[in-house]
Amino acid sequence: MSWAIFESRIRRTQAEMQGLGIDLFVAGASSNLFYLTGYPPRGDERLLALVLPREGEPFFIANLLYRLQVERLPVKEQLYWADGQDPYGLLKSAVEARGFKTGKVALEASLPARFALAIQQALKGSSFLLGDALTENQRLIKDESELSAIRRASAGADEALRAVLKRGRAWIGETERAFSDALTAEMRALGLEAYGALIAVGAGAAEPHHRTGETKIEDGSCLLADFGGRVEGYCSDITRTVHFGKPCPEFERVYGIVLEAHLRAEAAARPGGILGEVDDAAREYIAGQGYGEAFTHRLGHGIGLDVHEGPSAVRGEKTVIRPGMVFSNEPGIYLPGRFGVRIENLLAIGQSGAEALNRFPRELVVIG
Amino acid sequence: MSWAIFESRIRRTQAEMQGLGIDLFVAGASSNLFYLTGYPPRGDERLLALVLPREGEPFFIANLLYRLQVERLPVKEQLYWADGQDPYGLLKSAVEARGFKTGKVALEASLPARFALAIQQALKGSSFLLGDALTENQRLIKDESELSAIRRASAGADEALRAVLKRGRAWIGETERAFSDALTAEMRALGLEAYGALIAVGAGAAEPHHRTGETKIEDGSCLLADFGGRVEGYCSDITRTVHFGKPCPEFERVYGIVLEAHLRAEAAARPGGILGEVDDAAREYIAGQGYGEAFTHRLGHGIGLDVHEGPSAVRGEKTVIRPGMVFSNEPGIYLPGRFGVRIENLLAIGQSGAEALNRFPRELVVIG
Repeated sequence: MSWAIFESRIRRTQAEMQGLGIDLFVAGASSNLFYLTGYPPRGDERLLALVLPREGEPFFIANLLYRLQVERLPVKEQLYWADGQDPYGLLKSAVEARGFKTGKVALEASLPARFALAIQQALKGSSFLLGDALTENQRLIKDESELSAIRRASAGADEALRAVLKRGRAWIGETERAFSDALTAEMRALGLEAYGALIAVGAGAAEPHHRTGETKIEDGSCLLADFGGRVEGYCSDITRTVHFGKPCPEFERVYGIVLEAHLRAEAAARPGGILGEVDDAAREYIAGQGYGEAFTHRLGHGIGLDVHEGPSAVRGEKTVIRPGMVFSNEPGIYLPGRFGVRIENLLAIGQSGAEALNRFPRELVVIG
Repeated sequence: MSWAIFESRIRRTQAEMQGLGIDLFVAGASSNLFYLTGYPPRGDERLLALVLPREGEPFFIANLLYRLQVERLPVKEQLYWADGQDPYGLLKSAVEARGFKTGKVALEASLPARFALAIQQALKGSSFLLGDALTENQRLIKDESELSAIRRASAGADEALRAVLKRGRAWIGETERAFSDALTAEMRALGLEAYGALIAVGAGAAEPHHRTGETKIEDGSCLLADFGGRVEGYCSDITRTVHFGKPCPEFERVYGIVLEAHLRAEAAARPGGILGEVDDAAREYIAGQGYGEAFTHRLGHGIGLDVHEGPSAVRGEKTVIRPGMVFSNEPGIYLPGRFGVRIENLLAIGQSGAEALNRFPRELVVIG
């Protein structure tokens, strides 16, 4: 990435600060910091932050440990502190020395309380608010290079699932954990930075955010796989629910309802439409089939450098859908103690409609 | 784990709140929440928290998505919110309905600003501070079952390194990333939940927190491996610096200095001693040998459910060393553009001295 991209993102952020009357923005190690400077989103308990004024040049503050990494960043002013020194005093005096205004200070949303409260203490008298809005409008619309990364991350996830499912019934008797590890290994082999794959078997699939464990895949159980990986920092996210052995009639019926809801949401995801209405399209159909109570979460979420980014495809969300947006379409029906079905694709909004970035078939795959 | 353990940890936390005059403690998904309730330390953008009053029963607040996991927790009162609802209004009214005092509210240190600022807004008029101190004294002293987990996590890391280094000179030409993946795979095979292994080759080893990448292992380069994994939630952490091919005289000299500093620190880590003086023991020796400027970080950190826990073994730290404490002993010398050496063991403090939990040899291993 060229420095010009970071420069332009920082100027755009300052323009948002102008519009919102925010004087100062403090971003710790996070996807926002990566977006603005290229610094990887991995923090620890030592303060590391970009401090951006509404006008003028930002500075970067970091522990000496990170000097060799920070020196390469497109931020000229860099302040270092050593273990045992007070980084908040350094931040405060650096802000004062530069004459930065501090009336209204925005904190990056993922900044841990250990930093947030100490910064509130150091900049006493300021009012504090979240800084999400400063980058959200930019990050919401993906440019060609960002889209290309998400596309590759999605294709890699599709391919990994295909490779893992090739083992077919050999999976029976293996654990959720083993299936998850196999998916991760396939994604890594394809060059993706894989995060843990959520695998839920049988009744575990009725927990939308089940913890992958030692439950065994059985003949006659469903398997829900929700996973993804990163390419150049950008995420994919896909869910498929497959079935080992013959499913019961209600599973087949539920699968068909989720699939139809998924397709209706995809059709509703048009530029110029309203994001919340994409959720409505899926939800109303599922409710009409009698499973409204069993669809317990929003339809989807924005995605990019974070797996979950705002805004969400959730009832009442007023954001107008625009070309360049990417979000997940993942309706689900969960029957506690029995099974769950979720089908998730990423949708990239183009000039005339939504393109599904995942190509793995959505129809029910029965293994056995 | 029995519910009695969580009950006793919660009562102990309330006693600390009493002592510090804290009315309410809010802990999101974190190692502290795991310590207090067994809920895994994995959060997302949806508010999930334990709300603990100084007296009486805590409540848990979570999105409906997590109900099946939260229901199993040793916290009787559970409040759920659905996507689209306001969790902060729910939290506020629940606090009011129970008559909890909110004058002084402690936030768990890792709580993201997105939650911290919203809670500050919901409980306007309260003063806020960090809640680390509420669990630190308990977590600092490991009981037998905690020590056993750290011991197994350490033995697993030692064994993984042994297995990976068996390939000897076959590593020459391979990347840092490949070495890291191999270590991770070995740890997983041994039943550890491995986090990414930091591998730094040659000049990369001069960056204490180098990012593992595509640099190739060469004949004549050092390789620094800093890694660990979890057993039952508890972490190990070990660093060794090995050399492929014959090292230059300065590398050998630096290695000897770091090793001697490491041994001096271990000898200084006695119950009744002062934690900061363990750092002094290593630092003064390194400085006396002319490399004081090149030892750029603290000697070590506490460890347990988190890889880094307070208090640190750092100059000026006044904590008295007590049996049951576990911390890292990791002096290093970093020569930018050339090489770096770090040797790290975990030390468990017993009745009469420190026990090194890592058994992998500390003497220089030359491969080739």
